[in-house]
Amino acid sequence: MKTSNELVRNKIEELWEEEKLFLKTLGSFPSSLGNEKGIQQFVYNYLQDIGLETEVVAVDPDRLRKYENFGEPEWSYEDRPVVVGEWKNNGPKKGKSLILQSHMDVVNAEPEDQWETPPYSPVIKDEKMYGRGILDMKGGFAAIVMAVKALRESGIELGADLQIQSVIEEECTGNGALALLHQGYTADGALIPEPTQSRLIKAQVGVIWVRVKVKGAGAHVERAESAQNAIMKANKLMESLMEYREHINNRSKHPDFEHHPHPLNVSVGLIEGGNWASSVPTECTFEARVGFYPGTDPEDVKEEVEQWLLGAAEEDDWLKEAKPQFTFYGFSAPGYTIAKEEEIMEEMAASHYAVTGKEVEDLSFTATTDLRAFGEFDIPATCYGPSGGDMHAPNEYIELSSLKEVTHTIAEFILRWCKEK
Amino acid sequence: MKTSNELVRNKIEELWEEEKLFLKTLGSFPSSLGNEKGIQQFVYNYLQDIGLETEVVAVDPDRLRKYENFGEPEWSYEDRPVVVGEWKNNGPKKGKSLILQSHMDVVNAEPEDQWETPPYSPVIKDEKMYGRGILDMKGGFAAIVMAVKALRESGIELGADLQIQSVIEEECTGNGALALLHQGYTADGALIPEPTQSRLIKAQVGVIWVRVKVKGAGAHVERAESAQNAIMKANKLMESLMEYREHINNRSKHPDFEHHPHPLNVSVGLIEGGNWASSVPTECTFEARVGFYPGTDPEDVKEEVEQWLLGAAEEDDWLKEAKPQFTFYGFSAPGYTIAKEEEIMEEMAASHYAVTGKEVEDLSFTATTDLRAFGEFDIPATCYGPSGGDMHAPNEYIELSSLKEVTHTIAEFILRWCKEK
Repeated sequence: MKTSNELVRNKIEELWEEEKLFLKTLGSFPSSLGNEKGIQQFVYNYLQDIGLETEVVAVDPDRLRKYENFGEPEWSYEDRPVVVGEWKNNGPKKGKSLILQSHMDVVNAEPEDQWETPPYSPVIKDEKMYGRGILDMKGGFAAIVMAVKALRESGIELGADLQIQSVIEEECTGNGALALLHQGYTADGALIPEPTQSRLIKAQVGVIWVRVKVKGAGAHVERAESAQNAIMKANKLMESLMEYREHINNRSKHPDFEHHPHPLNVSVGLIEGGNWASSVPTECTFEARVGFYPGTDPEDVKEEVEQWLLGAAEEDDWLKEAKPQFTFYGFSAPGYTIAKEEEIMEEMAASHYAVTGKEVEDLSFTATTDLRAFGEFDIPATCYGPSGGDMHAPNEYIELSSLKEVTHTIAEFILRWCKEK
Repeated sequence: MKTSNELVRNKIEELWEEEKLFLKTLGSFPSSLGNEKGIQQFVYNYLQDIGLETEVVAVDPDRLRKYENFGEPEWSYEDRPVVVGEWKNNGPKKGKSLILQSHMDVVNAEPEDQWETPPYSPVIKDEKMYGRGILDMKGGFAAIVMAVKALRESGIELGADLQIQSVIEEECTGNGALALLHQGYTADGALIPEPTQSRLIKAQVGVIWVRVKVKGAGAHVERAESAQNAIMKANKLMESLMEYREHINNRSKHPDFEHHPHPLNVSVGLIEGGNWASSVPTECTFEARVGFYPGTDPEDVKEEVEQWLLGAAEEDDWLKEAKPQFTFYGFSAPGYTIAKEEEIMEEMAASHYAVTGKEVEDLSFTATTDLRAFGEFDIPATCYGPSGGDMHAPNEYIELSSLKEVTHTIAEFILRWCKEK
């Protein structure tokens, strides 16, 4: 007779065409910030169809603001719910309960003309599937859903509760993850199948966003010499921010990031200024993302960034009077670490070994994920997910062989963590 | 018995409240690029009401492209006509025919929160009227319309034809001015009451616009170190453009601009790049305006600017491969000069003296106006108009005392130039 693991492995292979189709469907929803309704509706229906007890939860920022990991939004949460599907074990608890979480929001696909195929019409070429969000992280979501489906269709009954959480705003605040935890959807452990290239996250940096508004003294370009060009003034501050980046990377490193040559990224992500070629712009606004080590308070980083840029402004006759204005919104995300000795790390490592025959590598991640929300709720959590490329860039893709392997590993992990009834 | 001049002067004083109201009304139309329909309809009706023979002419770029002064548009001309009102002399021609021309388009008023009063709700405070376009150049238009109205209401019959031309796109292409000239609306001389602070333009620089599109290699910010940030790359090119500005100003100066410390402005007017704080931007586009001396071919300047920036790109490992892309649209405007000995210059100087008791100053203008279109049609033309401040900037205003004085000067000039029947 076949073992449960063998049954599930066969089932995952059987479901492989369906898994690719499922991922393609997920990738067809342009679920960028504010546009998550459609995909969440689809996910809700799908989780119901595979037999989970499903609930839709609204994200209410006023209830979440108390959490350390809350990110201040500048938009409404209307029609932008989070979704959870529960597979309850109706018997004695033999294993540990588990959350499998993914975010359905994607960063937008502009400029779309840099894509070789349309970003929301996923295509497969040379065993890769291309599309916005296919890697980050609809692929991971396909893996957890198909792992669960394979377990259920193999007739397995788990020894503990399992949840699939489908959230929003991993890319900007983390408030989607908080909303379900706040609602009571907690567990003994959590796995997020972010695209880690089959590595296990043991640490991730913290991240804040800052918006810097620079004023100029506008004028007809005829008097450009006496005017103050807000765009050129913003350039100065952006260059200063690059010096800040070097400054913080030259400090002694956090132990988890010791071997990374340049762990703390500071990057300008968008800019907008002026409105007419023949006018000297009176305003220019740019936004940047600043990374920092676990253990640092995001509020301290905001203060440091603001003081650094005000220092640069002091060196400019105009900016020292017309001081730049700072807005901190979106990510206010502390770092996160988890000991390799935690049971979830060991079980994930064992699952990886069982499927691949190799020791898993760990990863100190130089960006943020929703892991930190689980940290705030004292739920041991890690990320482990598929391989691919060009995340947050045109022509994002997933390696399909990696997706299948990760699906197997996650199924293996569920059996080890939740155990059977 | 009163002379014609005395009658007209009294009439202008009588009409002063009406002139201010007329200017306020003009200023209430938000006639930025693409939004000129309303004001042109109003102007058409108004010119008809004061008894002129009025025609609406569509701007057809395909008919205008042959002119040296044509500027390539990136927009439609639907519902954006130019308007002309003619006061024909139905007798022997005793004087010279005259065009009084103004543009009704304004640069947009953003950021509106930097205005102390709403930009399209003109208000008078301390003998200044504030509003977008009030100075540049609806004030000048009010002056010519009221000067003509005063002449007509004084019972004067001119000794030559007079036209009032109300055009669009002085701020971006000059195609509005060309459209009426192409249609045959020419004359022996032309005056544009641009806000010259009662100075007489004898020369103006040429202007081109350039759009520079910079590509980066986008990525999730986690890999920002290996990505290429299009915004930071654009910064390099903008700084290089500032070096170009110094370069061209260090060359020997055109005689008309010899005494100007810095006649050739090069200014970045707008920028847009990236779309997400946590993504490394793959694209950044900026637009700049470049000035050059009369006598230089705009095409040569475009070539020089492109080569200069490509030279800067060569010094950057990324940009030398991912070369910036250049688009030249809008202004492709050669400079313009007129000899002080031209009759129109002498008559304007005499008119200024008659009204103010002072010698007029001449002006070598470091921006462009529609004068150059008249130059292309061999029509002697100059600018002379009111004083004020903050053109192309928030809180633009006109000095009302200057507006009235200019109205008198223009009426005086009409009598001198066109003569009486």
